[in-house]
Amino acid sequence: MGQLAIDYHGSGVFKPREYDPEAPSSGQVQIAVAYTGICGTDLTISHGGMDGRVKEPWPIGHEMSGTIDELGAGVEGWNVGDKVTVMPLDWDGTCSACLAGYNHICQNLNFVGIDSPGALQNRWNVKADWLVRLPEDLDLKTAALVEPVAVAQHDINRAAVEAGQKVVVIGGGPIGLLIAIIARNRGADVLLSEVAASRLELAAEFGVPAVNPASDDLGEVVLQRTDGAGADLAFEVSGSVPGVKAMTDVLRRRGTGVIVGIQPKAPPVDVFQIFWKELSIIGARVYERADFEEAVRLVADGTIPADALISDVMPLSETAAAVQRLDSGENVVKLLIDCQS
Amino acid sequence: MGQLAIDYHGSGVFKPREYDPEAPSSGQVQIAVAYTGICGTDLTISHGGMDGRVKEPWPIGHEMSGTIDELGAGVEGWNVGDKVTVMPLDWDGTCSACLAGYNHICQNLNFVGIDSPGALQNRWNVKADWLVRLPEDLDLKTAALVEPVAVAQHDINRAAVEAGQKVVVIGGGPIGLLIAIIARNRGADVLLSEVAASRLELAAEFGVPAVNPASDDLGEVVLQRTDGAGADLAFEVSGSVPGVKAMTDVLRRRGTGVIVGIQPKAPPVDVFQIFWKELSIIGARVYERADFEEAVRLVADGTIPADALISDVMPLSETAAAVQRLDSGENVVKLLIDCQS
Repeated sequence: MGQLAIDYHGSGVFKPREYDPEAPSSGQVQIAVAYTGICGTDLTISHGGMDGRVKEPWPIGHEMSGTIDELGAGVEGWNVGDKVTVMPLDWDGTCSACLAGYNHICQNLNFVGIDSPGALQNRWNVKADWLVRLPEDLDLKTAALVEPVAVAQHDINRAAVEAGQKVVVIGGGPIGLLIAIIARNRGADVLLSEVAASRLELAAEFGVPAVNPASDDLGEVVLQRTDGAGADLAFEVSGSVPGVKAMTDVLRRRGTGVIVGIQPKAPPVDVFQIFWKELSIIGARVYERADFEEAVRLVADGTIPADALISDVMPLSETAAAVQRLDSGENVVKLLIDCQS
Repeated sequence: MGQLAIDYHGSGVFKPREYDPEAPSSGQVQIAVAYTGICGTDLTISHGGMDGRVKEPWPIGHEMSGTIDELGAGVEGWNVGDKVTVMPLDWDGTCSACLAGYNHICQNLNFVGIDSPGALQNRWNVKADWLVRLPEDLDLKTAALVEPVAVAQHDINRAAVEAGQKVVVIGGGPIGLLIAIIARNRGADVLLSEVAASRLELAAEFGVPAVNPASDDLGEVVLQRTDGAGADLAFEVSGSVPGVKAMTDVLRRRGTGVIVGIQPKAPPVDVFQIFWKELSIIGARVYERADFEEAVRLVADGTIPADALISDVMPLSETAAAVQRLDSGENVVKLLIDCQS
């Protein structure tokens, strides 16, 4: 015994479990998990919204950093002590999406940390194929941000953001902020739309121009900033009905909207605008390997303001309390769980 | 006097008017209109749906063929007697869309035949810039189909249809049928979805495989035809809420949906599918010059089965009756108005 895991039992219940880790099987490594971030999907799970996918009590969590603790048979290119993160996608390699080169949206995807056990535990056995190398000198707290940065990087790549483009990001949670920061880093002219005062303050701290659409006319502001043309790109990250409406409203003719936020049911969409302005509305989900590797670079070179984004670190035993803090509306961006004790 | 025009007066009222044509001004030509087709937009106008755009009583109509009757000053490259059609788009050339190269979706577009006088008259003065040359040996009835073919050609080009692709066309009216025919001509594997028995018969006549989603499970049929992957492309041409739903349902991961049909208000859209399958949903409106010129070739070389698509030809004086026939649900595809007498 001696190792701790926090199992999710469904219906919002987390329970601690002590265990003796199994040795990694062939092709696996065992990771000593350092830090695991709690994300919006984890909150959805904790509300019971994905109980059909967490089929047995096991730890969730997929935003993590750690070091290799043990190598299974046949694992090459890795050593005990290597700093790693995990790209938590396990595809079948045989479905039509995989064969077409889109294995990240495999028709039978196992999202590790939801559909199979995740990182909210001291020791985690994973396929060596999922590992992504971290620089030796990268702080492991900072490194726990790689996964959400990879999400934002994928969104940016799907939209092919270029220098000089006028970009509107609708929704200033962690992913929205990261998209804004990465887009700005590419030389785009970014405007964030967000209603929460605390998130607007954070945007100001990062120097990202922001509008509160509850008090200002977002469409009018965008027109002013674009000489009446409208935005080249709009990222819908709010997952809200007004967000989808704002996306089609602010785009210029032939502009591109990116669906990042998860819409729980079919919202009304101004399809006429898609037609009239010949918009492109594209979906962006998870990440590809290149996004993940670029995310490591962005985290390591300081493009991502990790210290400002990590609001607090809490012990593994307090995972349920961390989830409650995020639910409470308290002014936190990213909470990390310390999985080292 | 001696020339006849049919003016649209708003509120569904068409009235004949005799007139002496003005001479074409500088840069214009006068066309002796041969045939003008009635399209879905003309029907929307006749239902009072666009009375705000037809600002004064004038003829509508923009699907036409004719011969040049008189040249205004400064017109070069054209001769009296040349067979022509008109690309009825008058852009300002100065707005951000025009400057970006998308003049067909100019922010201040004058759609000729709606926002300014159209072709339902014996003589029509138009800018020489709008003319598109027709082959000398092309029948002028057939040539009246060039404009709707250009619409379909633009949709096909926006979607970049390629040989071997699995294409679903949702809605089998004139534009849907034309998209199906042109896509098949490019080597795509086309399936039409349509509920009206008469249109299903027409599809069968053209050898286009079709499904009636009211009696068959369209999604299931598409999965069977695509080895479980879903369609590469789906064209939403029905302008209906179930059509938009079917579009996101039938597409494969990274598939492309094209919004062709006009949705009068914001319908529910399965935005989650756009995200989950990383779809691209793109709008396609009117046409560019290259689409129009390609449409002339497709009509001239017989790719478009003009005889089967043209259900009847009626005299100009019976324009209102033609509109009523199209409204009545009678089994007609395309009605042409003979504008020569």
